[in-house]
Amino acid sequence: MADSIWCNGCLMPQDGLRISPFDRGLTVGLGLFGTILAIDGRPLLLDRHLARHAAGAQRLGWEMPDRIALEQGIRELLEANRLTRGAARIRLFQTAGSGTLSDPALGPDCLTVLTAVALPASPASLSLCLSPWVRNERSPLAGLKCASYAENVLALQQARSKGFDEPIFLNTTGEVCETATANLFAVRDGLLFTPPLSSGCLPGVMREQVLELAGHHQIQAEVVPFRLERLISSDELFLTSSLRGIVPVTRLDQHDFSPGLLTARICGLLSGLLGSSGATG
Amino acid sequence: MADSIWCNGCLMPQDGLRISPFDRGLTVGLGLFGTILAIDGRPLLLDRHLARHAAGAQRLGWEMPDRIALEQGIRELLEANRLTRGAARIRLFQTAGSGTLSDPALGPDCLTVLTAVALPASPASLSLCLSPWVRNERSPLAGLKCASYAENVLALQQARSKGFDEPIFLNTTGEVCETATANLFAVRDGLLFTPPLSSGCLPGVMREQVLELAGHHQIQAEVVPFRLERLISSDELFLTSSLRGIVPVTRLDQHDFSPGLLTARICGLLSGLLGSSGATG
Repeated sequence: MADSIWCNGCLMPQDGLRISPFDRGLTVGLGLFGTILAIDGRPLLLDRHLARHAAGAQRLGWEMPDRIALEQGIRELLEANRLTRGAARIRLFQTAGSGTLSDPALGPDCLTVLTAVALPASPASLSLCLSPWVRNERSPLAGLKCASYAENVLALQQARSKGFDEPIFLNTTGEVCETATANLFAVRDGLLFTPPLSSGCLPGVMREQVLELAGHHQIQAEVVPFRLERLISSDELFLTSSLRGIVPVTRLDQHDFSPGLLTARICGLLSGLLGSSGATG
Repeated sequence: MADSIWCNGCLMPQDGLRISPFDRGLTVGLGLFGTILAIDGRPLLLDRHLARHAAGAQRLGWEMPDRIALEQGIRELLEANRLTRGAARIRLFQTAGSGTLSDPALGPDCLTVLTAVALPASPASLSLCLSPWVRNERSPLAGLKCASYAENVLALQQARSKGFDEPIFLNTTGEVCETATANLFAVRDGLLFTPPLSSGCLPGVMREQVLELAGHHQIQAEVVPFRLERLISSDELFLTSSLRGIVPVTRLDQHDFSPGLLTARICGLLSGLLGSSGATG
């Protein structure tokens, strides 16, 4: 039986989605999305995900989808797709619908879509390489989880072609920003540090959670701009993302890294918060 | 009667388009497009449009849609939508279909879509303002007419909110690049100049046509990087786009411009090439 999706309040078969050829989510990438990890039928950090989505919607002047409907949609969809055990990836996607090119306002035929698929196990560690391209922190899309996301596809492809898992983007001024699909953290001499939002990185839900955990547990954390040299000379390096949690980085171009004590401690704190399978799942 | 679209070789009603919720054209803006002006049922500069599309497809490793099928599709669509008289806007759109995030390769369910609508008359002149954002010439998408196009929507909205028609993007190094939807040309002391592709601007079909006309008619043209000051101190300023042809700029922020002799001469040459209604339509 084919999997279901949820669209504008209704469960439907995947191939039942009808979309206007003029929907600007399709024609010009005018959509917002987020990916949410569900463990045993429970979406993790949903409050943070919906708050981040609402902040993006507000920037576009969009109405936020109804929260109760979304929560019910997630429940129904996980059940319909038999994803109430183990790890699932939920994707919340909002398209602009039809309208003019010069105004992002939602059209009458805009769509809110939920999809859910089983999530394969994440790798225990990752390798990074410097992208030949840069992130534009002076784009109107900086910090928006926008469907105009193709540059990440091409940067990922380029990194994979060189044998690495993810590319690191610097921004246009040479500051470290993020990877294609995750935020970056590093540790040196016991100090945790990560790029600020002004670098152009996405306000990752897991990034925010890790910073809050650090604050609550007297882990010294610094959110200031820094350059690649500081990353290379760090003691520990890890990525954060909603789907993968915290993943140690073991290589950055020709430089090797070992997962360290602070990374392990933060993983432990996150596991305690989310339940054991949520921290690294 | 509802209008038709053309998809993968078939005419169908607009609301007949079924698209996978996992099509990366929808989820991550992994699509290529182009907009073609048709006058009285005849698509203008089709060779150039298809060559530009093919160059983009090659960068993504995509197969180019079959040319004969596209030409037939355009004919059928213009007839079905009663657009064989006057000006129409044809949009060619190719989506990636389903697939992984780390490889742009076309999926088995990728789509090639043609839409056609009547084109309202273009304004006789336009006003520009400097965008607060910049174009990233060091993006993997630079120069690609990619569906990850939302930054143009937001920049257009910002310009319109200030009472201007189009924003001018500089690139990350402060060179003049393009507007949200058009290429920029200027004239000073009889010399025509426009930003090079290395500025990050799109290789516009009309830009290429104007440069070729200049070359054929002993109009001195320079394609080198320049900064905003040079634009402000120019004698004439105009935009080029496939749909609008050549449009004089009469204002750039607080600076006024008058359409000049060289702009008029190039308009005349273009009219001669395309037929009179094609030059400014």
